[in-house]
Amino acid sequence: MIVDSALYRGGVRVPVDCTKEDLAELRDRAGGAGDFVWVGMHEPAEHELNHVAEIFSLHPLAVEDALKAHQRPKLERYAEGLFLVVKTLWYVDEDDAVETGEINLFVGRNYVVSVRHGKGTELHSARLDLEKQTAVLGHGPSAVVYAICDRVVDEYESVATALEEDVDEVEASVFSPIRTQDSQRIYILKRELAEVRRAVLPLREPMKRFATGSVPFVTQEAAPFFRDVTDHVIRVTEAIETLDTLLSTAFDAHLAQISVQQNEDMRKISAWVAIAAVGTLVAGVYGMNFSNMPELRWHYGYFYALGLMLVSSVVLYRFFKKSGWL
Amino acid sequence: MIVDSALYRGGVRVPVDCTKEDLAELRDRAGGAGDFVWVGMHEPAEHELNHVAEIFSLHPLAVEDALKAHQRPKLERYAEGLFLVVKTLWYVDEDDAVETGEINLFVGRNYVVSVRHGKGTELHSARLDLEKQTAVLGHGPSAVVYAICDRVVDEYESVATALEEDVDEVEASVFSPIRTQDSQRIYILKRELAEVRRAVLPLREPMKRFATGSVPFVTQEAAPFFRDVTDHVIRVTEAIETLDTLLSTAFDAHLAQISVQQNEDMRKISAWVAIAAVGTLVAGVYGMNFSNMPELRWHYGYFYALGLMLVSSVVLYRFFKKSGWL
Amino acid sequence: MIVDSALYRGGVRVPVDCTKEDLAELRDRAGGAGDFVWVGMHEPAEHELNHVAEIFSLHPLAVEDALKAHQRPKLERYAEGLFLVVKTLWYVDEDDAVETGEINLFVGRNYVVSVRHGKGTELHSARLDLEKQTAVLGHGPSAVVYAICDRVVDEYESVATALEEDVDEVEASVFSPIRTQDSQRIYILKRELAEVRRAVLPLREPMKRFATGSVPFVTQEAAPFFRDVTDHVIRVTEAIETLDTLLSTAFDAHLAQISVQQNEDMRKISAWVAIAAVGTLVAGVYGMNFSNMPELRWHYGYFYALGLMLVSSVVLYRFFKKSGWL
Amino acid sequence: MIVDSALYRGGVRVPVDCTKEDLAELRDRAGGAGDFVWVGMHEPAEHELNHVAEIFSLHPLAVEDALKAHQRPKLERYAEGLFLVVKTLWYVDEDDAVETGEINLFVGRNYVVSVRHGKGTELHSARLDLEKQTAVLGHGPSAVVYAICDRVVDEYESVATALEEDVDEVEASVFSPIRTQDSQRIYILKRELAEVRRAVLPLREPMKRFATGSVPFVTQEAAPFFRDVTDHVIRVTEAIETLDTLLSTAFDAHLAQISVQQNEDMRKISAWVAIAAVGTLVAGVYGMNFSNMPELRWHYGYFYALGLMLVSSVVLYRFFKKSGWL
Amino acid sequence: MIVDSALYRGGVRVPVDCTKEDLAELRDRAGGAGDFVWVGMHEPAEHELNHVAEIFSLHPLAVEDALKAHQRPKLERYAEGLFLVVKTLWYVDEDDAVETGEINLFVGRNYVVSVRHGKGTELHSARLDLEKQTAVLGHGPSAVVYAICDRVVDEYESVATALEEDVDEVEASVFSPIRTQDSQRIYILKRELAEVRRAVLPLREPMKRFATGSVPFVTQEAAPFFRDVTDHVIRVTEAIETLDTLLSTAFDAHLAQISVQQNEDMRKISAWVAIAAVGTLVAGVYGMNFSNMPELRWHYGYFYALGLMLVSSVVLYRFFKKSGWL
Repeated sequence: MIVDSALYRGGVRVPVDCTKEDLAELRDRAGGAGDFVWVGMHEPAEHELNHVAEIFSLHPLAVEDALKAHQRPKLERYAEGLFLVVKTLWYVDEDDAVETGEINLFVGRNYVVSVRHGKGTELHSARLDLEKQTAVLGHGPSAVVYAICDRVVDEYESVATALEEDVDEVEASVFSPIRTQDSQRIYILKRELAEVRRAVLPLREPMKRFATGSVPFVTQEAAPFFRDVTDHVIRVTEAIETLDTLLSTAFDAHLAQISVQQNEDMRKISAWVAIAAVGTLVAGVYGMNFSNMPELRWHYGYFYALGLMLVSSVVLYRFFKKSGWL
Repeated sequence: MIVDSALYRGGVRVPVDCTKEDLAELRDRAGGAGDFVWVGMHEPAEHELNHVAEIFSLHPLAVEDALKAHQRPKLERYAEGLFLVVKTLWYVDEDDAVETGEINLFVGRNYVVSVRHGKGTELHSARLDLEKQTAVLGHGPSAVVYAICDRVVDEYESVATALEEDVDEVEASVFSPIRTQDSQRIYILKRELAEVRRAVLPLREPMKRFATGSVPFVTQEAAPFFRDVTDHVIRVTEAIETLDTLLSTAFDAHLAQISVQQNEDMRKISAWVAIAAVGTLVAGVYGMNFSNMPELRWHYGYFYALGLMLVSSVVLYRFFKKSGWL
Repeated sequence: MIVDSALYRGGVRVPVDCTKEDLAELRDRAGGAGDFVWVGMHEPAEHELNHVAEIFSLHPLAVEDALKAHQRPKLERYAEGLFLVVKTLWYVDEDDAVETGEINLFVGRNYVVSVRHGKGTELHSARLDLEKQTAVLGHGPSAVVYAICDRVVDEYESVATALEEDVDEVEASVFSPIRTQDSQRIYILKRELAEVRRAVLPLREPMKRFATGSVPFVTQEAAPFFRDVTDHVIRVTEAIETLDTLLSTAFDAHLAQISVQQNEDMRKISAWVAIAAVGTLVAGVYGMNFSNMPELRWHYGYFYALGLMLVSSVVLYRFFKKSGWL
Repeated sequence: MIVDSALYRGGVRVPVDCTKEDLAELRDRAGGAGDFVWVGMHEPAEHELNHVAEIFSLHPLAVEDALKAHQRPKLERYAEGLFLVVKTLWYVDEDDAVETGEINLFVGRNYVVSVRHGKGTELHSARLDLEKQTAVLGHGPSAVVYAICDRVVDEYESVATALEEDVDEVEASVFSPIRTQDSQRIYILKRELAEVRRAVLPLREPMKRFATGSVPFVTQEAAPFFRDVTDHVIRVTEAIETLDTLLSTAFDAHLAQISVQQNEDMRKISAWVAIAAVGTLVAGVYGMNFSNMPELRWHYGYFYALGLMLVSSVVLYRFFKKSGWL
Repeated sequence: MIVDSALYRGGVRVPVDCTKEDLAELRDRAGGAGDFVWVGMHEPAEHELNHVAEIFSLHPLAVEDALKAHQRPKLERYAEGLFLVVKTLWYVDEDDAVETGEINLFVGRNYVVSVRHGKGTELHSARLDLEKQTAVLGHGPSAVVYAICDRVVDEYESVATALEEDVDEVEASVFSPIRTQDSQRIYILKRELAEVRRAVLPLREPMKRFATGSVPFVTQEAAPFFRDVTDHVIRVTEAIETLDTLLSTAFDAHLAQISVQQNEDMRKISAWVAIAAVGTLVAGVYGMNFSNMPELRWHYGYFYALGLMLVSSVVLYRFFKKSGWL
């Protein structure tokens, strides 16, 4: 689906009398220096994308990649233009899960085609924001690329923050005095982190290349801005690595916790067994059949025996309490 | 065995009146610019391969490697031509196992010799597909190399997908409430992953070199296509690495699970022991031989005692149920 | 808040008749070769920093970073000047915790603007120290940059020392004969180390670049001094890595300790159960109802039975003591 | 000991009338282009090696290394010639152990001196083989270096194969239903692997340098052959790495196995304890002294009680069998 | 303290009539080509080192480092000369511990100042050895630097050997049938290894730089000798890495051993409990109060019961012995 398409001249959207699907018209009008067309698509059908590809002479391999949409983040240089793939990430609160989408950008001298898959990092609002900043938009396609990358990476940071909170929760759970079973939770978090890493890590390379200002179709003046994006990508990467290491340690601590609890259970059980054993022993003694057992003939002998059981149990109980077994 | 051999001119198979074994004839006819011969072999006998080697002047070291067929993936440049080794992978559903084969490619200015070992990645159908794409095949030997690499790497991706499913199953098994013994399964999966890694990882280097367009006998125009293959190889590699890390974590979680279950068993056992101990204690008490034990003379004393046992057992049972020990 | 601002000429603070907020005046007077202005700010409000930025034409991206203050350590080169971010670290004794702050430095030909966030590495005293060393301060902005970096890295070293002491304590605790639960402590220390690593590691790169003397606005003569700082940063990094590895090993040792203790508990419990079982067995034997049991008719039979229980218990107790079970 | 020495001209051994110790004579005759002397020594005494060193002007540092024979694999370039150290490996079946020896090669324009230590990779047969290949030997010292490296690396591969079998055995043992104690075996295998790695890994660098054809005294024409050796070294390295990783996983699986078995033992024990406890409880009940216990007066009451014990035991036994505890 | 100082000319110590503290005199006489002064100090006071620094114009940063003596191994190039820091290591047998010291070398065109801290690697004997080798000493300061580095690295090797013996002992202890608690020992060894690594690893870089012959003040002719030292440093590093890996595996094996022993204890305990339970059951049976229990009236019934207990115990004991539980 074509979400929007427009011709920009000097950072300003040029009102046109054709529909947003009439791209050939737009392209033809974008003849002046600094003119460019920005076509925004969302999960386009094959024929739609092929139509756009034809109009802007996009490279067939790139078009195929943009259709399939399960690419690694990458930057490809073709003679005709650039092809940039970035993954989008968003955090679904209900499931404590990270989901991934994808944005494909075709960038040429006088056009940008953005193809978005999945729900993450909505781009139409990015367009509206940009249209308010004439000075920025005046830099042409580079401004669009920067705006999109910046927005995507900002979402990486909020995903990283959400995951940090999840790790904090796991941590609290692991070290809480309550018995918890955190191994599945830790496993799932590690899987999420692996997914995020696969989305974020490969983006460093393209951003660094933009930051050196040596990529055609992206103006040298945008370099400091992409340096900033690079920096954010690295920060997210480092945050993710740290979380992963912490989770591993938390998992080990969880294992230690389980061992310690097992040990405590065993001592508690043993203490109670000992208390019961003493009662049984006393009962056994007075169940012996010796003809001469003075206590047996005492009038309150029975109650004395019950008392003996009780007293020894209480003494043992106190002893175990004191030595930490109960 | 020579599976097929043909002369191509301008992307079209030239019908010849000689048998597919008559390679000298084919070679001699491939004199024009853009002409090339493609010989496809499957597990050739030594004399067969030596014959082909003589006709196309293949390098003896490469021929020896192609016969032995237990090479690492690699790209060798000889003065006479290229020698490319790729491993084929396929997933055997019955055994949940990955098996490996090998394809050796000799590439010269006007010939391609493909030598396949094992069952993976059948090449004759690749030839038939290519013969339908005259434009592609017109690029000569490079087109054949690309078509084969693309097909091999596509199979890597389906193997990776099959392994992902296996890991998902292991994961479900590890975290299922049922007691499972997953360590052997995890071990075997890790061994499969190691095998896949050894097949896939070393292929990055040759594909990258093709992607730069700096390898002789492979046309510069094919570079974007090999960049695409490189990208797929990297994606498979990353998927494999992620799976391996997940399996390690799953294994640790499995260990934790075992510990937790052991703990639960121990508590369950202890609870039952406690219940039995109370009954035994009551029996012991009324087995004492004191002359003055009022209950003993009660008419329903015995039933009272049995009742006492029963009640205390039920009370304990409920208590343990409530506190999660049973 | 502007903490202080001054004009330096030939390493000497030039008394001015304007307030410390009147930066335009200061800048205008800093016209001579070797003159420079040093503005020191602490957690400035947005408008304050914007004002300074305007006067010294600071790059907007850098200004934005300096305001937000959650950057990675980095060195950015803009046409107008340098932007350096360093993290400050300090150790809070009460909590055994490391806290982080940030210093942002804007460095130009004739100015330095330092923006400090958090409580760490107070800079006004650094200024006072520097003002006493006219020869050093005569090197201009480079001297200020060096003085600040040196001070920050010195604090890294004292944080590393404090963490080394913490690790020593954990180590002593793990191997003490007393039962300790060190996993949470180790986890927290590992988290602190991760935080320190994230602050220190990325600083190597900027310091190395200064040490090569190839960064504009920083004089080549300062290179050996920054080499010294680089060296300290590397030393801290290595210390941190070593501590992290030691903690991992200490954690494993802690797990082993728990296992050994559990084993000891189990043997101790079992020994006591055995002692109780022997007494119960003796009682059971003399509770049998055979008509012909000579001991039952002995006058001191009962006391003999009690004695038998006692003796066998003592014998068992000694045996267990000797074999290390008790 | 000098094993053999000979003068080669055009790939053919030149019969000489001097003894194999008369090296000065040999050297003097090797004046023509393509002539070279190959001296083969086995664990030479200091004076023997010094004599050879004097005749061929070997570098004293290299000679010292060749005498001590505990070097890392390395390639040293001196003005006078090359010095190559390779480790030999062989597998001792009786001990399941890998042993290491060493070969030192001095290579000059017209001589090769090989100094072998330990039992591995016998070289005299290599010489005899080479003497049959006149064409190969005609390439001079390079042919000798290649022949020796090839032979050494071939033995690496058979050692790797033997270790793979050992790992397979360990794997079978770990996952066998029989209780095994594999940790020592795994430890020893890991130590062997470490030894192999230390022998093989550093050889990559020298072989790669030969494979680029940029090392003096080794002819450029030998490059493809050394590329082949490099490839084998890398294959062995990868095999070793994979085995090491598998062993780590096998070890973890072994730990899991131990835990699972402990759990099973505990459940089995508990089941039997429960069965005994039921019998004891029944006996306790009928050992009570109530005056009114109808069963006591039954004629077959005793046998009924024994029957009750038996039946309850059988019922419990079946129950435990069914639920997998026995 | 100045241990010794001397002027060397052509590799020979020149007798001087001034005291070893009169360095200005020595420096002034070292005017000829090839003349140089070697000042050896041990833990000098600040004023002593400052005096030396003044006479040879040493760089203040280097002097400060040499005084503080807690540097990483490093090589600094100043305009005036080199500054080399190496760590010394020695093994203290009584404590099974490695201790570290430090040697700082200032090297100029015509002087070497060596500053030693700690007890390791005594240098005066190195000087005496060198003075006997006129040819070597004739190479000037480079010879001194080489001699010291060689000696230091030789001590690294003996430390590595001592640690290898320690690891062998630990290994023997871990796999001995006796119960041992090796975790603390392993921990301490790992800490020692970390210390050694921090001393040895950073020395590779300076030695490699000397080995390329590109460092001023160190003659190109010394390159092969420093290559030799580099090689030794790498060998020590590899040995250390291997030991560390082995210790990790040994630790895991230790954990496995603990688990196995715990399992054995549990089975042994359970077997004895079972034996006691059978006796108790028999006693319980004959403690029942049925009026018709034939055995009770047997004349030797009591002894029969005791015999039954004994026989069943012996049978069980044998059974457990056979099945490996006892």
